[in-house]
Amino acid sequence: MLQKRRIYFDNAATTALDERVLEAMLPFLREHYGNPSSVHAHGREVRAAIEKARKKVAELLNTTPGEVFFTSGGTEADNTAIFSALESFSLEHIITSPLEHHAVLHITDRCVAEKGIGRTLLDTDGQGNLDLDQLKALLQQQPRALVSLMHGNNEIGNINDIEAIGNICQEFGAFFHSDTVQTVGHYVHRLNDLPLNAMVGSAHKFHGPKGSGFLYVNKNKKIKPYILGGSQERNMRGGTENVAGIIGLAKALEIAYEDMEGHRKKIIALKKHFKESLESAIPGVSFNGRSGDLENSLYTVLNVSFPASSNNQGMLLFNLDLEGISASGGSACSSGATLGSHVLRSLQVSPEKESVRFSFSRFNTVEDVDYTIGQLKTLYEVGV
Amino acid sequence: MLQKRRIYFDNAATTALDERVLEAMLPFLREHYGNPSSVHAHGREVRAAIEKARKKVAELLNTTPGEVFFTSGGTEADNTAIFSALESFSLEHIITSPLEHHAVLHITDRCVAEKGIGRTLLDTDGQGNLDLDQLKALLQQQPRALVSLMHGNNEIGNINDIEAIGNICQEFGAFFHSDTVQTVGHYVHRLNDLPLNAMVGSAHKFHGPKGSGFLYVNKNKKIKPYILGGSQERNMRGGTENVAGIIGLAKALEIAYEDMEGHRKKIIALKKHFKESLESAIPGVSFNGRSGDLENSLYTVLNVSFPASSNNQGMLLFNLDLEGISASGGSACSSGATLGSHVLRSLQVSPEKESVRFSFSRFNTVEDVDYTIGQLKTLYEVGV
Repeated sequence: MLQKRRIYFDNAATTALDERVLEAMLPFLREHYGNPSSVHAHGREVRAAIEKARKKVAELLNTTPGEVFFTSGGTEADNTAIFSALESFSLEHIITSPLEHHAVLHITDRCVAEKGIGRTLLDTDGQGNLDLDQLKALLQQQPRALVSLMHGNNEIGNINDIEAIGNICQEFGAFFHSDTVQTVGHYVHRLNDLPLNAMVGSAHKFHGPKGSGFLYVNKNKKIKPYILGGSQERNMRGGTENVAGIIGLAKALEIAYEDMEGHRKKIIALKKHFKESLESAIPGVSFNGRSGDLENSLYTVLNVSFPASSNNQGMLLFNLDLEGISASGGSACSSGATLGSHVLRSLQVSPEKESVRFSFSRFNTVEDVDYTIGQLKTLYEVGV
Repeated sequence: MLQKRRIYFDNAATTALDERVLEAMLPFLREHYGNPSSVHAHGREVRAAIEKARKKVAELLNTTPGEVFFTSGGTEADNTAIFSALESFSLEHIITSPLEHHAVLHITDRCVAEKGIGRTLLDTDGQGNLDLDQLKALLQQQPRALVSLMHGNNEIGNINDIEAIGNICQEFGAFFHSDTVQTVGHYVHRLNDLPLNAMVGSAHKFHGPKGSGFLYVNKNKKIKPYILGGSQERNMRGGTENVAGIIGLAKALEIAYEDMEGHRKKIIALKKHFKESLESAIPGVSFNGRSGDLENSLYTVLNVSFPASSNNQGMLLFNLDLEGISASGGSACSSGATLGSHVLRSLQVSPEKESVRFSFSRFNTVEDVDYTIGQLKTLYEVGV
């Protein structure tokens, strides 16, 4: 059971479900239980609700309903985009980066191993910046390429210029997929203007339910399904729909768009306060990737590099947890692995320093930040 | 909106969520929102709940928790078993049947097209019976085979003897996967005694939530993941877990096992009453597959072949729907397709007759049956 004071600073891993989202889902966990593929009344009312949800998602993302496909989450959507685009367009080379999520990297591993497709990882500097001239040079050599570069990095908060990347891809005829899991619901995407072929979203990253995501695929770049079965999702994804999950995703996205700028302002003020308080409380603190750059990183993520400390000795996250503060060493998805963060490794962050990702949501408060700073101060002062 | 009297006889497509299942899920849609992969307290309490659910499912199926993997549903689980077993064991041939669900057939289509794997569909007779001598003969010629044969057929209710099939597969060293979506939660599976390598379940077929299923893989036949990303499900399925869905699946299975024999008795009595009432009400009625054989078919499914009727003219399902009765022409998953049921086609059921699948659950009543028989009688008498 949770302690009485428990602070949640791991919103890049998952977010609390908004109560209004649950309210929207409940009728589809109770009376509206039909299978949306059934043609009778029980099915039709559910089908109508799913299509309304799809229309809502499409409107918010400035695209058309025919380009939105519901999935079980961001990982399935990333797998589908990459595996199926390679198949559908007989692409021969993958260009991606070592900073991508495993949902992207591991499906490309399979395609390299099993299909003999080539892959190049873009170089990154110590802050995780990509070199778009290198991308251009590679695309000149590889005309049949798939480019997969994320929008916002889940660990270090770096934001890639997906418009610039998309324009380059378009120039060279490459298929451009972007893992946008960390930015959907937090940033505006105008898909009718963006030179993107595919992108993905995951409801639980923006106060929606776990197990529900979507794949956007541009109508001019139709791809084959990855999960094969019935003719659901216009033959793009077999399997009975997670109806309540889909309704919840659309509702969560709707709420996110209602006052996105207000949320951004609130959260970035928290991040700024957190950063400045840290800098004055803990000498020697620094920030990984670009996450310390308030203007040019995800407003939800601050990845802190703490000085080595004889008191904490690699146990800082554990000590924070004991004090009732949930934060993370990297992406939650990799926490089962003992290797630590592949993102921080690729930035050659010193293993002597302790890296902690604090990630914020609109449910966090200034009091959460101040309490955490106080605890960190104590953890560093004791033993000095 | 649903009419005031609305009868649901499409339980093979999906079932109503049991209120007790929803109660079990709600805490994981409210206060327990952590990511189960997170190592802090918010994550650990959710991880513990998932592992408790896994243990419960394993106990009920007479297997070990390490052999149960949660998925987004039956289709993903079928895809994973087939695609990944072929890869993991370098299998060269698939043996399946034309009566399988598209979740099985379509992933084998891909493996045939993209990997150059051979495939044989077993012959079936007019009732959908398989010839196990043919299976033996094929396995003699194809030592590196994957056999995928379902337990209970979703359309015609035929039950295959998966123990006998599994013994044959074992004798010839074939990998045996069974799509058990229609029997999990309705029949007892003793996996520690069954010669099965893989099988699947889908929560919404037994009063659990949509978007939640599982894959069982025998510990001696470990396969690779299909959905690739984080290290969730012990590296067997990337993607943040659908936590509430998993909790709901385990609870629904627990309820199903609490009084499975009582439910069977209740439902088979309904099916018998339905069948006998039909036979006396509608001259010329017959039953597709083995579904009319009360002892040797799914107790949940009755697939009725109605005589051609000038009154209904192919509109029988539509007319039933107008009268407030939800039934189905085939599997819901195929209803988007205009081709009708591939299962009935392969049995060479006369297209002049109208086939309607009525499928039952413990929420159906004798009154539901009698009302439906009355409506059918009227639909057939008018116009005669």
